Amino acid sequence: MINRLYDTSLSLLTDLYQLTMAYGYWKSGKAEQEAVFNLYFRKHPFGGGFTVACGLSSAISYLNEYGFSKKDIRYLGTLTGSDDQPLFEEDFLEYLRNLEFKCDVEAIAEGTVVFPNEPLLRITGPILQCQLLETPLLNLINFQTLIATKAARMRLVAPDDALLEFGLRRAQGPDGGMTASRAAYIGGFDATSNVLAGKLYGIPVKGTHAHSWVMSFDTELESFETYARYLPNNVTLLVDTYDTIQGVKNAIIVGQQLRVRGHDLGGIRLDSGDLAYLSIEARKILDAAGFEKTSIVASNDLDEHIMDSLKQQGAKINVWGVGTKLVTAYDQPALGGVYKLAALKNERGEWENKVKLSEQTIKTSTPGIQQVRRYRNDRGFVADMIFDVRMEVSEKATMVDPYDFTRQRRFDTRYQSEDLLKPIFRAGKQCYEIPAIEDTKQRVQHQLSQLHEGTRRFVNPHTYPVGLEKGLFDTKTALILKLRGGE
Amino acid sequence: MINRLYDTSLSLLTDLYQLTMAYGYWKSGKAEQEAVFNLYFRKHPFGGGFTVACGLSSAISYLNEYGFSKKDIRYLGTLTGSDDQPLFEEDFLEYLRNLEFKCDVEAIAEGTVVFPNEPLLRITGPILQCQLLETPLLNLINFQTLIATKAARMRLVAPDDALLEFGLRRAQGPDGGMTASRAAYIGGFDATSNVLAGKLYGIPVKGTHAHSWVMSFDTELESFETYARYLPNNVTLLVDTYDTIQGVKNAIIVGQQLRVRGHDLGGIRLDSGDLAYLSIEARKILDAAGFEKTSIVASNDLDEHIMDSLKQQGAKINVWGVGTKLVTAYDQPALGGVYKLAALKNERGEWENKVKLSEQTIKTSTPGIQQVRRYRNDRGFVADMIFDVRMEVSEKATMVDPYDFTRQRRFDTRYQSEDLLKPIFRAGKQCYEIPAIEDTKQRVQHQLSQLHEGTRRFVNPHTYPVGLEKGLFDTKTALILKLRGGE
Repeated sequence: MINRLYDTSLSLLTDLYQLTMAYGYWKSGKAEQEAVFNLYFRKHPFGGGFTVACGLSSAISYLNEYGFSKKDIRYLGTLTGSDDQPLFEEDFLEYLRNLEFKCDVEAIAEGTVVFPNEPLLRITGPILQCQLLETPLLNLINFQTLIATKAARMRLVAPDDALLEFGLRRAQGPDGGMTASRAAYIGGFDATSNVLAGKLYGIPVKGTHAHSWVMSFDTELESFETYARYLPNNVTLLVDTYDTIQGVKNAIIVGQQLRVRGHDLGGIRLDSGDLAYLSIEARKILDAAGFEKTSIVASNDLDEHIMDSLKQQGAKINVWGVGTKLVTAYDQPALGGVYKLAALKNERGEWENKVKLSEQTIKTSTPGIQQVRRYRNDRGFVADMIFDVRMEVSEKATMVDPYDFTRQRRFDTRYQSEDLLKPIFRAGKQCYEIPAIEDTKQRVQHQLSQLHEGTRRFVNPHTYPVGLEKGLFDTKTALILKLRGGE
Repeated sequence: MINRLYDTSLSLLTDLYQLTMAYGYWKSGKAEQEAVFNLYFRKHPFGGGFTVACGLSSAISYLNEYGFSKKDIRYLGTLTGSDDQPLFEEDFLEYLRNLEFKCDVEAIAEGTVVFPNEPLLRITGPILQCQLLETPLLNLINFQTLIATKAARMRLVAPDDALLEFGLRRAQGPDGGMTASRAAYIGGFDATSNVLAGKLYGIPVKGTHAHSWVMSFDTELESFETYARYLPNNVTLLVDTYDTIQGVKNAIIVGQQLRVRGHDLGGIRLDSGDLAYLSIEARKILDAAGFEKTSIVASNDLDEHIMDSLKQQGAKINVWGVGTKLVTAYDQPALGGVYKLAALKNERGEWENKVKLSEQTIKTSTPGIQQVRRYRNDRGFVADMIFDVRMEVSEKATMVDPYDFTRQRRFDTRYQSEDLLKPIFRAGKQCYEIPAIEDTKQRVQHQLSQLHEGTRRFVNPHTYPVGLEKGLFDTKTALILKLRGGE
């Protein structure tokens, strides 16, 4: 996806400190030291109880294209420090020029519901390479996950309606729009207004006309008639340019003309005013005229909360056009994903666990080579347990709540389980087939159906249990105590 | 800029309804009818008193590349309506394939402070072309203007400090990051961490090391020493991995080693904890050890309000690393720019004024072919008057407040004035030279210096006067009355 949009090498799409650290690792002979980094977030966006993973396919494209071009190297050679001398020596630049991506990557599939502190991606490989990838991986995963989650929330509010994404004009740049169109579709939207997203991602596109169409004719009726004459198979008429109720009546006149010619009035669209009141009135007028099947489309600064409120007010809207609030994730425009070192192989070839301490417990990272085991029963998902793949974890594992170690849970064979992190790259070679976008889209809806209703709720959602396997919990605790005790 | 990043034609980066309307215009013989559209916003972002225009250079790149590729046309041919028949007929697609951009464009230069309802761009040309451009122009201008404004606000808080943009990892996609890096630089930032932005836009890049660098060594001191050994001309040490005060002391040890070798400790960085307290303590410790010139860099979810608060608490921070809150414009992630039809040439070749009514006065558009005249005196900018270029506007123009027509203001020859909209394209050919990014950056600071202090204030800023020239005000009023009187 990204590689189709950009024609410059994207390997410099990273923070300079990744390159200065890379230089330091290289100079000190540590460039090839094996490391494990985890990409995860600490808190669900939007105050919700779940998050929908998205962006892996972009990350895969990015990694497959990885490598520094001659131009990249030439540019890096121009960078200087406080004494106007080059930051990097030639041999290092030559090393970068010849660098081949050779990490292992495990990841949770796009469209999976995920929870705080679970690694969405785990990168294992030379610390220099892992480090360079931090920024682009976070950039790709954070934003797409955020938008897919936002879209999924809207789908929960309107399970049986059509959801259209109209956000391109207010998106954060061209690929803010492109990426949002794709992630919104995966998260549960039916179509986009963004024609380029239709072309590149195969997403259905929708749209009819704007106020300017109506204004460019002498009367609203003339504008509707002209539109319906030339696009009879795509007629949703925007009725609020002058007077909404009169607009509905004009739409009905045109609907009757369409029927004479073997077509029909697909919908009317409301873009201003009291959408609850106007949709109810419009529905009555349409039904009375025999247009029971004509859709009522609403737009105008919608989000899941306004949609929910309109539903509760009995609004007769069955198609929702959502723009700004979706594509920018307006109420929380960034997911705070992080990327942390969890283990490092020492000179003797042994893995050493690593944690980043913090005065805030939530910010202390978890060490080890982690996997996420999801337990489920007949009613759906039960809990996720993070464990270290190097430890033997029996069927009767014990899971500890990392924020209250007295809360422990024993699993047994009554539960089925699945390990969520799947191999994506082995030694830099892709070993995973990206599912079709339609399959990922369906996966989201299936995953959501496996969550307890309380976890899907918007207000004070139930916290889905995520814990550490007891062995990993003990390892983490011992490591923290050691670090806090002083070195 | 955009054309360097994308290798697909971007002409489909628009809403489908622009194309269905285009088809309708073409079928009804109106495709070439001359129209005037204005791009403007209705409200300053962030509750502020000014906005910094940005994005014109991207818009120019976009327009210079305008045109539909064979692939675009082939894709459009696949779109169908409710009856599974094509939306568009072949001849229309052929028309698009041969379409050449031939509009006139006027615009306000990037880096100019602008105010609600002023056209930032005015497009004059065939209505079909104007319409297709609505979505991409809004996408490009909205986001960049938003970020440049956010950056300018931060610069106002810290006029003498260094401002570094660190947002790539949390930006809304790759070019969300790229575009934000450029707009932040224009708005007043000194450098970015984004290396690709450095390469493509010539922006200075900055960065040293992360927590993972420290964690990858046995001790913090060893990590600092190693870093300083290999990058002695770029040493800003992150001191909060384990214990911040101890970290400062370790940094000083390394600073002393650096001095022995003819270098110096450039800075220390604080990324967590109480930044006011820690920066004051760190300053004392550094000064006592003779490191008075060592910078104190702070990062961690900063925005202009937190920066302002830290300044008021006496924080000793002289370099600010700002990420998420800047590059996503976190507290208002979209500017609500709009694009409205203002005039249309009828069959007799006469311009007809157009307005879009709304129950909210603020949403009623202004008709006519508009220009913005900025009046100033020795102390700075005084007021902006929107007028119609077809009307004779004398030196003694009268300006009317559109929200309270009893507030009128008479200008005379004591004021100097400048018309802000400059010709950018004539009949589709660029006739404007894009200034160097450094010049645009300087323009922002000069423009801000011309505003009254009260207009730059964050809390309840003074409203800079923007009005309509009396002739235009009367025209608009008469047109509204006519439309409201019923047709």
